[in-house]
Amino acid sequence: MTPTLAPSSRVQLTEDGKLRHFLTTEHLPRSLLEDILDTAASFVDVGGRSIKKVPLLRGKTVVNLFFESSTRTRSTFELAAQRLSADVLNLDIAKSATSKGETLLDTLRNLEAMAADMFVVRHQDSGAPFFIANEVTPNVAVINAGDGRHAHPTQAMLDMYTIRHYKGGFEGLKVAIVGDILHSRVARSQIHALNILGADEVRLIGPKTLLPVEAESLGATVFTDMALGLKDVDVVIMLRLQKERMDSALLPSEGEFFRLYGLNNDKLQLAKPDAIVMHPGPINRGVEIASEVADGPRSVILNQVTFGIAVRMAVMSMAISGQESSAHGRTGGERGQ
Amino acid sequence: MTPTLAPSSRVQLTEDGKLRHFLTTEHLPRSLLEDILDTAASFVDVGGRSIKKVPLLRGKTVVNLFFESSTRTRSTFELAAQRLSADVLNLDIAKSATSKGETLLDTLRNLEAMAADMFVVRHQDSGAPFFIANEVTPNVAVINAGDGRHAHPTQAMLDMYTIRHYKGGFEGLKVAIVGDILHSRVARSQIHALNILGADEVRLIGPKTLLPVEAESLGATVFTDMALGLKDVDVVIMLRLQKERMDSALLPSEGEFFRLYGLNNDKLQLAKPDAIVMHPGPINRGVEIASEVADGPRSVILNQVTFGIAVRMAVMSMAISGQESSAHGRTGGERGQ
Amino acid sequence: MTPTLAPSSRVQLTEDGKLRHFLTTEHLPRSLLEDILDTAASFVDVGGRSIKKVPLLRGKTVVNLFFESSTRTRSTFELAAQRLSADVLNLDIAKSATSKGETLLDTLRNLEAMAADMFVVRHQDSGAPFFIANEVTPNVAVINAGDGRHAHPTQAMLDMYTIRHYKGGFEGLKVAIVGDILHSRVARSQIHALNILGADEVRLIGPKTLLPVEAESLGATVFTDMALGLKDVDVVIMLRLQKERMDSALLPSEGEFFRLYGLNNDKLQLAKPDAIVMHPGPINRGVEIASEVADGPRSVILNQVTFGIAVRMAVMSMAISGQESSAHGRTGGERGQ
Repeated sequence: MTPTLAPSSRVQLTEDGKLRHFLTTEHLPRSLLEDILDTAASFVDVGGRSIKKVPLLRGKTVVNLFFESSTRTRSTFELAAQRLSADVLNLDIAKSATSKGETLLDTLRNLEAMAADMFVVRHQDSGAPFFIANEVTPNVAVINAGDGRHAHPTQAMLDMYTIRHYKGGFEGLKVAIVGDILHSRVARSQIHALNILGADEVRLIGPKTLLPVEAESLGATVFTDMALGLKDVDVVIMLRLQKERMDSALLPSEGEFFRLYGLNNDKLQLAKPDAIVMHPGPINRGVEIASEVADGPRSVILNQVTFGIAVRMAVMSMAISGQESSAHGRTGGERGQ
Repeated sequence: MTPTLAPSSRVQLTEDGKLRHFLTTEHLPRSLLEDILDTAASFVDVGGRSIKKVPLLRGKTVVNLFFESSTRTRSTFELAAQRLSADVLNLDIAKSATSKGETLLDTLRNLEAMAADMFVVRHQDSGAPFFIANEVTPNVAVINAGDGRHAHPTQAMLDMYTIRHYKGGFEGLKVAIVGDILHSRVARSQIHALNILGADEVRLIGPKTLLPVEAESLGATVFTDMALGLKDVDVVIMLRLQKERMDSALLPSEGEFFRLYGLNNDKLQLAKPDAIVMHPGPINRGVEIASEVADGPRSVILNQVTFGIAVRMAVMSMAISGQESSAHGRTGGERGQ
Repeated sequence: MTPTLAPSSRVQLTEDGKLRHFLTTEHLPRSLLEDILDTAASFVDVGGRSIKKVPLLRGKTVVNLFFESSTRTRSTFELAAQRLSADVLNLDIAKSATSKGETLLDTLRNLEAMAADMFVVRHQDSGAPFFIANEVTPNVAVINAGDGRHAHPTQAMLDMYTIRHYKGGFEGLKVAIVGDILHSRVARSQIHALNILGADEVRLIGPKTLLPVEAESLGATVFTDMALGLKDVDVVIMLRLQKERMDSALLPSEGEFFRLYGLNNDKLQLAKPDAIVMHPGPINRGVEIASEVADGPRSVILNQVTFGIAVRMAVMSMAISGQESSAHGRTGGERGQ
């Protein structure tokens, strides 16, 4: 499992507690997570306007620094940046020969020297965005867009937004996360956020081979029986089953997985009558979720996507604002000499 | 051949007859095609200005949704969108792993949830943009950028613009379309548009194997002899010969094709003295057109490209305007909740 | 070696001596190079501002026309264009099937017809940007972003900016360029610029197999012994060693190359005490430069990157301005007819 990246909140926050980088939900104060949700609420409306743009990041350069390709995640950050009026530079380092044997640090130093303001980083290695955040100049803010098995904090926060939107808050809520918890950066970030925001109970449901051994220290309870796990929950979060896992020895057949852990209307009956169903997408119909549920009245899967743009706009604008307030009073680095 | 997608105009128009989606020229009222040409005329000037931009689509999100790669067509839509001040998201689904096994509908629903305003769709399957237009929320307008062998309506309309520009109108005009008509979505859209706009005669010229059997029901006459077909025409539209056709059994050798159906100055003599020569590009010099013609005084091939940006700006702005007037008075979907 | 492209300054300048295209530093008047540096100085500040944008190229279309892929160089031009408020179209012709057998000229004519204002050209063939500049309409400005072994003039000018910034000027300066001079378009453009700007001495240091035979006619002296070459120089410019060269017969082993021509602190001792160390990037640590030098107090490698954005903004805005003043009074070509 991922090593604990202990004093993670320190690098994420300015001296007066504002968001500076957004790398993980772990160890962040509840008030900050609530700030993110409140700021996002002010942006949700932007997507419904005729002119979907606010000038908050005008003249800023956002670099999508994707060491692992992901058109979908990159697109949501690109749209969020456009709606904040930022300029976007897409660097698909997985595909390009950008680095030509250059070290990661040299790549970063070069982008800093081009006066980039923000790196949105996706990386196959757990911890890479932390390494980057620790290394960048005071002029750059770093957003983690998914690192290895470690964290995917903007996904977790859009999930929190969705839950708060439909449930009014977290007090007394029972939330089930179902599927391949072990390999899921999304689940890890959700568990931290749910506990910080005061959810009553976080349940992890899946086959033993896909459950993390440290579940209890994460503040969650584990279930291998889906019927027991779903009993009376308010929120069901289904995880995507990666094809590469299905081919491995960790899992029975696809059909067997669906029988045991796929969500259909019958199993959903066990949850509370007003339970909502979530999924980070893209969904595998008939693998982890039945179409009757995905397209059913309790699914809020597409609303998550809508809220996701607003949450990313919130995190991006807060991190730039934190970076600016924190750089204020300093010499401002070597720029402009 | 392509099945008739009969009540196609219904999905394309708002209740009060404005453009809502632009999928095919077939069945559209003449007044609407003329509206497109008139609107384009107001944009042609923008390309000649020092600041080539109008604010009509500011804050709108245009998604180039290309299931079939085409740098050239994508570029013209991207430029048109930029000059309308829209934000553009390029999704090259042919190349990316975007979908990861996701269904087309799920991809669409996700983009809708991101508050996209327009999908510019190119797809290898005839009818795909219709399917998409029938499925999208009231907040999205769909533009067909070429589907299978079916239609390429913005190309046809830029051709109409070019003809009207040089000939003043369509009354009394004889127009020849030469080459591989059978497989050409461009030709199909041209034939519909020419008939709707009142051209006198549409002639299809090519080897029997490349002529559609339903020519007459399309409102065109067929010629296998180029000399007869070109006699006294006002407009000659050469089609691009696809390399993959040349290798098939449908065609004689490249040299033989050029001898019979390639346009050179000698053959062009048969047309009217002031006939214009058009081609959708990219041209194959010496295959379907001789350089002496392509670069000669009667070629308007590059002017077509210039007009093409204006026509795409017209269609995009009209569809957004139709979408907005049509969405007006509704609840506005789930956005912004 | 590259053929002399003799009256190169003619195509680069307007009738009254302003920059029209930027293709090579060779044969340009000293006053023009100084103008570029002065204009860049006014842009260096932009990268340090909260809103990193000036409206100089608003509504202009810049096409990055890359026949040879280069994410890094493309990114610097894209950022420079964004900060000038231009619209950017990236065409990676090396990767795309854009041309489909279309001739280079036809590709250019089509982009012109789309009302592009600037082509930023990278091409594997020496002279390609000249060919293009000679062919384009009066409405387009061409910037050479590297052609074959011939020239990379924006890189050379950012190097000149860096030298002037740290040394105050060029009078009396001794500059050493080290490595594979023979194949380097960067070195060639640097040598011309240094001589035009009045540097005292330009030294080329490398193994005999990687030194150009025409060094003296270029206005440079050659050294195969690095110790002799570095003696008392004010500026050391290290070139990147291309991996493909290392595998060829032209070179000894990588370790042997570093021993003879790699820059470490010991060798740097031979230069003046206040000598600066430059490199066009990306650096090969331990191949042509030791980390102790690259990260040391005399390295200005990252400052080159910062200045590079400003220099590219300068060249782009000057070329557009020259194009506009030169097009003024003409009919304006076929646009908008």
